[in-house]
Amino acid sequence: VRSKGGVVEAGRGYPLIEDRIQGEILRYVRVVDRSVARSELTEALGVSRSKISLAVGRLLEAGLLVEDGLAESEGGRRSSLLRIPRAAGLIAAVDLGATSIDVALSTLGSELVAHRGEPADVKEGPKAVLGRVKDLLSELLEEQGASRHDVRAIGVGVPGPVEQASGLLRSPPIMPGWDRFPIRDAFAGEYAAPVFVDNDVNVMALGEHWGGVGKGVDNLLFIKIGTGVGGGIIADRSLYRGTQGCAGDIGHICVDPDGPVCSCGNRGCLEAMAAAPAIALKAERCARDGVSPRLSGVLEERGELSAKDVGEAASVGDYHALEIIRESGRLVGQALATLVSILNPSLIVIGGGVANIGHSLLAEIRSTVYRRSLPLATRNLPIVLSELDQIAGVTGASVLAAEGVLQTTRVG
Amino acid sequence: VRSKGGVVEAGRGYPLIEDRIQGEILRYVRVVDRSVARSELTEALGVSRSKISLAVGRLLEAGLLVEDGLAESEGGRRSSLLRIPRAAGLIAAVDLGATSIDVALSTLGSELVAHRGEPADVKEGPKAVLGRVKDLLSELLEEQGASRHDVRAIGVGVPGPVEQASGLLRSPPIMPGWDRFPIRDAFAGEYAAPVFVDNDVNVMALGEHWGGVGKGVDNLLFIKIGTGVGGGIIADRSLYRGTQGCAGDIGHICVDPDGPVCSCGNRGCLEAMAAAPAIALKAERCARDGVSPRLSGVLEERGELSAKDVGEAASVGDYHALEIIRESGRLVGQALATLVSILNPSLIVIGGGVANIGHSLLAEIRSTVYRRSLPLATRNLPIVLSELDQIAGVTGASVLAAEGVLQTTRVG
Repeated sequence: VRSKGGVVEAGRGYPLIEDRIQGEILRYVRVVDRSVARSELTEALGVSRSKISLAVGRLLEAGLLVEDGLAESEGGRRSSLLRIPRAAGLIAAVDLGATSIDVALSTLGSELVAHRGEPADVKEGPKAVLGRVKDLLSELLEEQGASRHDVRAIGVGVPGPVEQASGLLRSPPIMPGWDRFPIRDAFAGEYAAPVFVDNDVNVMALGEHWGGVGKGVDNLLFIKIGTGVGGGIIADRSLYRGTQGCAGDIGHICVDPDGPVCSCGNRGCLEAMAAAPAIALKAERCARDGVSPRLSGVLEERGELSAKDVGEAASVGDYHALEIIRESGRLVGQALATLVSILNPSLIVIGGGVANIGHSLLAEIRSTVYRRSLPLATRNLPIVLSELDQIAGVTGASVLAAEGVLQTTRVG
Repeated sequence: VRSKGGVVEAGRGYPLIEDRIQGEILRYVRVVDRSVARSELTEALGVSRSKISLAVGRLLEAGLLVEDGLAESEGGRRSSLLRIPRAAGLIAAVDLGATSIDVALSTLGSELVAHRGEPADVKEGPKAVLGRVKDLLSELLEEQGASRHDVRAIGVGVPGPVEQASGLLRSPPIMPGWDRFPIRDAFAGEYAAPVFVDNDVNVMALGEHWGGVGKGVDNLLFIKIGTGVGGGIIADRSLYRGTQGCAGDIGHICVDPDGPVCSCGNRGCLEAMAAAPAIALKAERCARDGVSPRLSGVLEERGELSAKDVGEAASVGDYHALEIIRESGRLVGQALATLVSILNPSLIVIGGGVANIGHSLLAEIRSTVYRRSLPLATRNLPIVLSELDQIAGVTGASVLAAEGVLQTTRVG
């Protein structure tokens, strides 16, 4: 296996498909998520009956489709239904967070079959973190009685901006040592499968759109609030990445021109004022000022405070903790109102570690967005918590990889 | 001709096309803007040779394509090239501004063949304004030796939010009397062509993307600064409208929480602080305060000041006029920095009446955007003035109508 132009070169069974129509067939069957008749494919893809028959024949030979029961009669002889079998192969899905690793295996239909998550520190650098990722993948494969050769594509979400053309991280602020690290190549020695890399929030948006609360929604915003703040945009049913792949990077929207200086050099960025570190910092200030005995107690006991501590304090009625959470909600809501004016989505999904800090966060986000946006844009605009939560990332990484490999007919 | 579900019902020659493939062929030939061989269509659309031949045959019969020269030999016999003839029909394109009407005729390939613009007041209401539009259209048709029957589709841009499903204006703030007015029906008595309505800024974005500085650009933002401020979004080569059709409605982004109250009820909206009326208001204040003798002079002479007066004062070195323009530029730039973070476009086009107020506006927008946005997103981000300017709207209205009618195979 050699690497060329950033994409792993042909190994066993790669490229998976031979032409565009084969890819379209498999992508269609993936999405409808049931067995499909040839006639439905002809209709849905607007391709001639004979081309569909030819392509289906090749996919059956390759084991990427199997016949599965008979279609309803349409007057003529009954034709068999088609579906993607489990034996068609696996997708390896990886979700790197600032403080966590999640690894999963899924079918080619992006149904998770195994998942494992553990705490990690992305600051340990690519070698250590990706080494651990590969160990976890090996364990999962072994448990499933599968091997590296069964992996047809690898999807990776990372907590930083990814340049789409190269698949490289570009100056990721919270990932020292990862700038321009060739993540794709890290798998090349062991896996003969193509590797698709994208920003973690884009990947979570894909996951929630594929299998969560955003299923079937055309225009969706996924907002992650954790160590950073970011957004993933589904526009007209597709992930919108922008020109350099950094669309949705809302952490550096200015919410207060007089606010604190952010790591990016500007003042009052949303991330610097509302994400987990800002919440912890405000809590430490309260604890030191002695206005919140509860926060002071935790700080004294442990020497530091986390966003989670603030959530717990708020849940037992600590007024200052509640105010800190509400302020984050208000700031996120303020930026979201702008996003709503620009993108006019029909659903906003809030995820990430801070999302579950307490209901007052969501309540404050909602009331700020509804107050600040134009009535037409918010008439039918639910703002909800992520449904997939911990598995939104790996689900989306699987979707990224499956969609990617089914659009790749040539290598290089 | 009857109206049903908002779309004009079949008149002579409508629907224009019989099926999806015919529409795809014509849309492809439109976009490449040259004569095309059948083999190129087969390749580009991924449809079988026989289907292409059948569809092309029908389009030749209908006069929507003609044969035009021979293709380069590919070993076999040379096939003829195809193009859309002028006789295939005309598109009527209408661009309504708050203070202007522009009407044009174009080919099905969205090449303008006649254009007329005049001042108007949209506040006179739909009956008076659309009556004038229809008079201008009749004049243009007569000049071209054409009739209403030659019009294959009508595109209309309006300065307010348009609900896509119904084609109706929804509570347009600067268009009293137009709320929910059935614009499509206003043409139904005279034209047997379908009418496509969209927001004026969306239409200008389409125009600039089709035939202006944005040609060939995948991700483009068009910003109109005039009586209002609005944005049109081209994302992955298509106009992005959002769920209710109000994506890009950036006039009500908050740029100063302590700013003046806007017509929408919120404080410090971009439109209330940076558009033409705000510029005129600030100038009047300067004139009354006596700090700018030049502005005072114009106010005294005419009893009011316009944004244009401010531009002229600035051009002869009036410091206060220049400061007013710079402030508008800074505020627009501030909102644009947010848009850039969210959408990561590769080109920003500035148009509308205020765009030409003076170079200091564009200079201030540029420096604010480049200062406030993340380096990755602004690395290759030209911010330029609209190239089509006065005809951006009618060009886009033609594109809207042509694309629309070539996607409509059934009526109702």
